[in-house]
Amino acid sequence: MSDTAEVSFVGPYVSSQRVHWDQLDLLGVLHNSAYPVLFERARTGFWRAIGLGGYGDEKMDWPYLVARNEVNYRAPIKSEQDVEVSVWIAKLGGSSLTFAHEVRRADRTVAADGQTVIVRIDADTQRPTRWSSGFREMLAPYIKA
Amino acid sequence: MSDTAEVSFVGPYVSSQRVHWDQLDLLGVLHNSAYPVLFERARTGFWRAIGLGGYGDEKMDWPYLVARNEVNYRAPIKSEQDVEVSVWIAKLGGSSLTFAHEVRRADRTVAADGQTVIVRIDADTQRPTRWSSGFREMLAPYIKA
Amino acid sequence: MSDTAEVSFVGPYVSSQRVHWDQLDLLGVLHNSAYPVLFERARTGFWRAIGLGGYGDEKMDWPYLVARNEVNYRAPIKSEQDVEVSVWIAKLGGSSLTFAHEVRRADRTVAADGQTVIVRIDADTQRPTRWSSGFREMLAPYIKA
Amino acid sequence: MSDTAEVSFVGPYVSSQRVHWDQLDLLGVLHNSAYPVLFERARTGFWRAIGLGGYGDEKMDWPYLVARNEVNYRAPIKSEQDVEVSVWIAKLGGSSLTFAHEVRRADRTVAADGQTVIVRIDADTQRPTRWSSGFREMLAPYIKA
Repeated sequence: MSDTAEVSFVGPYVSSQRVHWDQLDLLGVLHNSAYPVLFERARTGFWRAIGLGGYGDEKMDWPYLVARNEVNYRAPIKSEQDVEVSVWIAKLGGSSLTFAHEVRRADRTVAADGQTVIVRIDADTQRPTRWSSGFREMLAPYIKA
Repeated sequence: MSDTAEVSFVGPYVSSQRVHWDQLDLLGVLHNSAYPVLFERARTGFWRAIGLGGYGDEKMDWPYLVARNEVNYRAPIKSEQDVEVSVWIAKLGGSSLTFAHEVRRADRTVAADGQTVIVRIDADTQRPTRWSSGFREMLAPYIKA
Repeated sequence: MSDTAEVSFVGPYVSSQRVHWDQLDLLGVLHNSAYPVLFERARTGFWRAIGLGGYGDEKMDWPYLVARNEVNYRAPIKSEQDVEVSVWIAKLGGSSLTFAHEVRRADRTVAADGQTVIVRIDADTQRPTRWSSGFREMLAPYIKA
Repeated sequence: MSDTAEVSFVGPYVSSQRVHWDQLDLLGVLHNSAYPVLFERARTGFWRAIGLGGYGDEKMDWPYLVARNEVNYRAPIKSEQDVEVSVWIAKLGGSSLTFAHEVRRADRTVAADGQTVIVRIDADTQRPTRWSSGFREMLAPYIKA
């Protein structure tokens, strides 16, 4: 499939991200609200990795909205470090797309896992609308078995 | 019950919070990661409203951790405005506590709802430990029927 | 002057703002990067207080850019609290406007002071352009003697 | 000098940092308050590059406070991109240290420059105290001529 011919990953896409000192809170841990940002930045990396150019890219079935976030906090991140954030497609619905994420600390411990659901909307009506067949084909290789 | 004698709310606690211009993202909406912060600030207001003095307050069964966050995004917040964030106790478990939250825009539309689960831990072992009976009594009036 | 007839402050405009627990950093103080946000939110309050409706308001000589920020940190903010952020106009130049700010902790200690310079630009050329005479008149009462 | 024998840079230290989509504001530019964070993260990289291990490292003359920040905004950062943030020592005073910074966009344009002044304090009295001779020697090679 030409669109993904040069994609270099098999299985989940993994985003390497830096947790900085200034993101640690008064208790010395990465704040709970930072995880949806880690998730989203990993998805941005995923879109780029499969050849999509960003918001407004025609192949991206833009616009879409974030409809739901779930985060399970497993172990605290207690210092500045590089973390890995994985991206799977857990489910591709008619107009929704569920991503599954896992955040691993530098010591490989799972710090958190969770899901983000996005929904394609029609720019005019702001109502959910179906993903295009091109978009579905493009994502098919990345749906978790 | 003396601890709560002066509490002035019935039903959910409601926190009024300002969404500032600088919190709107490139798409002109409050970013999805801002909602767990709205939830947490509302819980801080709730603790104060029932007479707890903050982190380290002996009556608070401190320390606890955020174990899970769920946010369902219902309608975007598209301008600076005062929003209302409600706090219910949805469930009081042995060592966990589930809060339910709802964010209402200035026009009263529900922007998001969700839940945050916190878990009491033992400061030494970092393992879950049961809430004290005093803490349970203190929270009983606020558990959603 | 009709535009400012109902303005209810004399001397600097003072913005009351909440510093939240989640804004305290690992050292237990409000992070240095939070102060330019306090300054900007105070200016937003100032614009509203003199009757301007926000970005895009015709009377506001929009667009303008932030050209410079200066912050002198005087005393740390070490807990969640209400702070006061004052807004003076220190200088009204041809195409620039210098605001002076002071942040006071709940105990009235000055936590920081500083300045923000904004510059009006032409939307097409993105080059500095002169403030209109209407804008100058509107601001005249608030220039620090 | 053994402490710096393995340091691999001459002239300013340069920190490569990612500006993420979620950091762009409603106007489509990196918000003015993000620059002090870029500056600080670059300094953290500088400390590491000269062999200091972080907050609490004995050689670091910890604790110190940020006393002043100055940022001149030169050109907006309008998309997610890698930026370079340089670190010079502009002045090493008795108890203060002035860093000069420059932020370059991916296209090499200077987005901002500025300075951050830090001051060593005595942990007990919280008053300024002189840098140690060891700290001075360690920094000497990096002072801008």
